[in-house]
Amino acid sequence: MPYCVGVRVFSLNCWGIPYLSKHCSQRYQMIGEMLSKNEHDIVLLQEVWSEKDYLYLKKQLSNSHPYSHYYKSGVIGSGLAIFSKHRIYDTFLYRYSLNGYPYMAHHGDWFGGKAVGMAVVNLGGLTANIYVTHLHAEYSREKDTYLAHRVVQAWELQEFIRHTSAGADVVILGGDLNMHPEDLGCRLLRSYTGLRDSYLETAKFDGCENGITLIADNTFINKKELIPFETGIRIDYILFKGTSKTHIYCDFMSTTKGSVPDHPFPYSDHEALTAQLRLKFNIPAETGRKLAELVDIVTEARTEVKVGLHCAERMRYTTARTGVMGLALLFLELAIAAVPCLALGAEQPFPCASFYLLAALCFSILLTTSLLYVFYTMELKSLQGAEDQMRLAVASLQEKLRGFPVARPHHTLQRPSEGEGPSALDPEE
Amino acid sequence: MPYCVGVRVFSLNCWGIPYLSKHCSQRYQMIGEMLSKNEHDIVLLQEVWSEKDYLYLKKQLSNSHPYSHYYKSGVIGSGLAIFSKHRIYDTFLYRYSLNGYPYMAHHGDWFGGKAVGMAVVNLGGLTANIYVTHLHAEYSREKDTYLAHRVVQAWELQEFIRHTSAGADVVILGGDLNMHPEDLGCRLLRSYTGLRDSYLETAKFDGCENGITLIADNTFINKKELIPFETGIRIDYILFKGTSKTHIYCDFMSTTKGSVPDHPFPYSDHEALTAQLRLKFNIPAETGRKLAELVDIVTEARTEVKVGLHCAERMRYTTARTGVMGLALLFLELAIAAVPCLALGAEQPFPCASFYLLAALCFSILLTTSLLYVFYTMELKSLQGAEDQMRLAVASLQEKLRGFPVARPHHTLQRPSEGEGPSALDPEE
Repeated sequence: MPYCVGVRVFSLNCWGIPYLSKHCSQRYQMIGEMLSKNEHDIVLLQEVWSEKDYLYLKKQLSNSHPYSHYYKSGVIGSGLAIFSKHRIYDTFLYRYSLNGYPYMAHHGDWFGGKAVGMAVVNLGGLTANIYVTHLHAEYSREKDTYLAHRVVQAWELQEFIRHTSAGADVVILGGDLNMHPEDLGCRLLRSYTGLRDSYLETAKFDGCENGITLIADNTFINKKELIPFETGIRIDYILFKGTSKTHIYCDFMSTTKGSVPDHPFPYSDHEALTAQLRLKFNIPAETGRKLAELVDIVTEARTEVKVGLHCAERMRYTTARTGVMGLALLFLELAIAAVPCLALGAEQPFPCASFYLLAALCFSILLTTSLLYVFYTMELKSLQGAEDQMRLAVASLQEKLRGFPVARPHHTLQRPSEGEGPSALDPEE
Repeated sequence: MPYCVGVRVFSLNCWGIPYLSKHCSQRYQMIGEMLSKNEHDIVLLQEVWSEKDYLYLKKQLSNSHPYSHYYKSGVIGSGLAIFSKHRIYDTFLYRYSLNGYPYMAHHGDWFGGKAVGMAVVNLGGLTANIYVTHLHAEYSREKDTYLAHRVVQAWELQEFIRHTSAGADVVILGGDLNMHPEDLGCRLLRSYTGLRDSYLETAKFDGCENGITLIADNTFINKKELIPFETGIRIDYILFKGTSKTHIYCDFMSTTKGSVPDHPFPYSDHEALTAQLRLKFNIPAETGRKLAELVDIVTEARTEVKVGLHCAERMRYTTARTGVMGLALLFLELAIAAVPCLALGAEQPFPCASFYLLAALCFSILLTTSLLYVFYTMELKSLQGAEDQMRLAVASLQEKLRGFPVARPHHTLQRPSEGEGPSALDPEE
């Protein structure tokens, strides 16, 4: 007999650039309030650039969405976050190999380390692979210098989803693809993966005309930048697909429409998407594993990574201190050189060559330490990302272990019969 | 009735550092000769750092192994290559998020962009996911500063294999893991993925004692570096696993033993591994797809990537030219400054301040162009990597298309019945 499960999915590009985005903290307050009230099963957020904001939301949603993950990558981070009502069993991150240029600092995409985050969630006995992503922005439709980068990102996104979702019963992707529905990357993604667009599939829709998510009526939007699409464009999506075992339908979809009742401004410069999905399936069987040993190994690996984390933190601190000393030396030199200039006529205490050599030294210290600082920051993010994933893995393994007969001696033991097929663990150990 | 397929897998770290590795071209000749004679189904190579060497092998093996892929990543490349007797349907590359430090240039790992490459191969009707990887080297066992990096790499490797292999009937991993069999990363990898070690599983073995692959008898090995493991260590592996549908056995395994008969030196500083695997399975069913449209979209994407490729090439060329000009300017300045020094007593034509400012300018041009050159090289590699994968995808899609009834009008048409389950393509198109 087929079972039915309803899943409410939410996606929003939060536009959370610290110090630059308008009314950032107030908007996060509004978002947290709205999410804690609404009964979304899965919340997919993009552009949560500051980890502080993620931690704020995590606290606000601790009751409504006890499970969450923040994907760390690049210099700043990937900006991706997931909140869930259902336990997250596993996470994985794929960084796109191309993501703009570091010298286009005003566009900033390169520093974000754009990526696709994956989370494995159990939805009523079904394995659901949830993906959240944010592709490189399109700054000019006529002269799009990043087109090749975005096409490669869409290519890698479809590859990642295709190759990682073979074991899943349900696939859901939410995020800001920065592409119109008929753009090449979008077509590539949909046709290769078989993902379906909830806006096109929904039985009922309530939201902006044509499902647009970057709209002229949003107070944070510069209307000129939308030209030639005066009313707005659709670049945010919730996509989904089932498998032979699971059928999936979209019963209802909605978007916000710019303003928010009782609030002076919208949640973000993008509109938020909500899709009400319905899954039909038969309950699958489960298999056991030598879990206790695996828990030990992952715990040991986590300790190793933590040691590396402390090392990297110390190195970054030393680098920062050296950089500050270089800066102080430079100021000192400039001050010494400036004194005779101010007191006109006094003799220059510095020989010219020494002055320039010392300045060059200071500059090279500053440059080297800056580069090293950026590098150590990236290293820290990666180590933290792995450590987070390991913590999650240990927790979910331990939960499985608790459900395992061996761990509950007061129950009737149901030891797996010996020699039943190849073991998942190395036989020599 | 179960079917049986024999698969011969080969793995070798080729030690192919241009100009630095000894007898590099002669060794590639030996490797090419040996591989073209032996009946390996799958050949997994590591440290093929130069694309020229890959292309040389590709030419040598064009008859014996018509299918191949070279994985591009990082500044230099991943050094990973696969050659196959069987068609490669799909490839994917995952770059490890941590891989040493750029300033440890003498260790060089960072510049290699270490990664795990995947190839989907059809082995007698079975979907086989083949992985090849090379983890960060261990330069000192006592004071291993890279331990955390290697543990994170092993973690990401197991995650990548676990998440991408759910749809595969067979999983095979070959490569230089730079870890002893009982090292943490190795245990993590085996226990989490369920991969089995062909050295431990094989029915018959012919090779070095304890299966060691970095041996003291190899003429390229500095015996002191092996201490405290005088005879050698086992760090290269062929691992495998089947599924509920497929059972997999290792009938025979061998390693080279240092010297090669009729040749003055070994193939590499590592020993080569060969595993003879046997797969038992039932023939699976196939499903059809709207292929023609997909071919068009991928072709269009490939064109876009090619445009980006030309752009990046032009940018790199411009950068190189600017760099050379900066260098020329520097030399010119030095020459002008040097003339009066050589002709003693002549007056210095340069004002001191201008001299240093100009020199600083030249240096900053050189530094900027060097960084940009490295960046464009990485961009080029990524674009080329995506383009390669797309070419492969189009070819394999076109092959499937040829086998599709609609494409063969002289046969009885077997159109798929309309509305049979959800389409893999977007329904709106």
